[in-house]
Amino acid sequence: MNLADTIRAIPDYPRPGIIFRDITTLLGDARAFRRAVDELVQPFAGLKIAKIAGIEARGFILGGAVAHQLSAGFIPVRKKGKLPGETLRVTYALEYGTDEIEVHRDAVQPGERVLLVDDLIATGGTAEGAVNLLTRLGAEVVAACFIVDLPELGGADKIRRLGVPVRTLVSFSGH
Amino acid sequence: MNLADTIRAIPDYPRPGIIFRDITTLLGDARAFRRAVDELVQPFAGLKIAKIAGIEARGFILGGAVAHQLSAGFIPVRKKGKLPGETLRVTYALEYGTDEIEVHRDAVQPGERVLLVDDLIATGGTAEGAVNLLTRLGAEVVAACFIVDLPELGGADKIRRLGVPVRTLVSFSGH
Repeated sequence: MNLADTIRAIPDYPRPGIIFRDITTLLGDARAFRRAVDELVQPFAGLKIAKIAGIEARGFILGGAVAHQLSAGFIPVRKKGKLPGETLRVTYALEYGTDEIEVHRDAVQPGERVLLVDDLIATGGTAEGAVNLLTRLGAEVVAACFIVDLPELGGADKIRRLGVPVRTLVSFSGH
Repeated sequence: MNLADTIRAIPDYPRPGIIFRDITTLLGDARAFRRAVDELVQPFAGLKIAKIAGIEARGFILGGAVAHQLSAGFIPVRKKGKLPGETLRVTYALEYGTDEIEVHRDAVQPGERVLLVDDLIATGGTAEGAVNLLTRLGAEVVAACFIVDLPELGGADKIRRLGVPVRTLVSFSGH
């Protein structure tokens, strides 16, 4: 099975000229979903990962499965105003404008080894914001994992420049 | 370990007089998270569940883990306008007003056995909408599973009246 073949391409979504990479077809295929989770975590199995940080919303699906696979806890990285406890917040750049994400201040103990998980990395703004938040809480961000990389948008390189290794399974060019 | 003790109570959130049951503390505790997933799916392990339907957003975390545990596929049940493919949509009642959720039309094959998963059931409006959508797509909804039940709000009974068994792990009164 080629994982890339289980990901649906939706042309002109959300805007004309954009090809949207829809991983719901991968998630719905039990064998592809399991294989993606297994391949993603394979290098980290012996590294005593304490927690998986998943980025809302698709990163929650994958992150929940990865946390289960590694017997780790789970940290939700959410859009502003969705977490009920005391939070730490960061602003990050979008293509047009900015957005904000948050984590609970007590989500990490200093020194805990954390793996960041999302479905796809494009420009890397959200992932960079998440690494920033986790680091400020004292986490050691061991790596950032994504099923899909859009390398032309430079996100993976942006995260590597922060000193965080990046693991991706499938690359698409021409985003 | 008592699972209920790992769930944080946040008084007066999101409004005065409401006690919010915050499962992020359970999710962040690796042992509690694993135990919740294992207990939730225990009755369904031999029942050839094809897919887990998780309700956005916290149901994605738990649903991803449950799908991994049962080697099933995953179906996202999302708020309106978040799914890129062709969708089926349902309107459901909130405390004040209504909201809409969607699934992809090709998310289920007729006759597939599906387990619905969310973190908490209160009035059951969202879960009822999700059962409605899955049934219209031809799924057999084997059961609906939640970590937390707020029985005074009647949601679990509402789902049972649809002919769908409900499994919950922890009950809180006085919501």
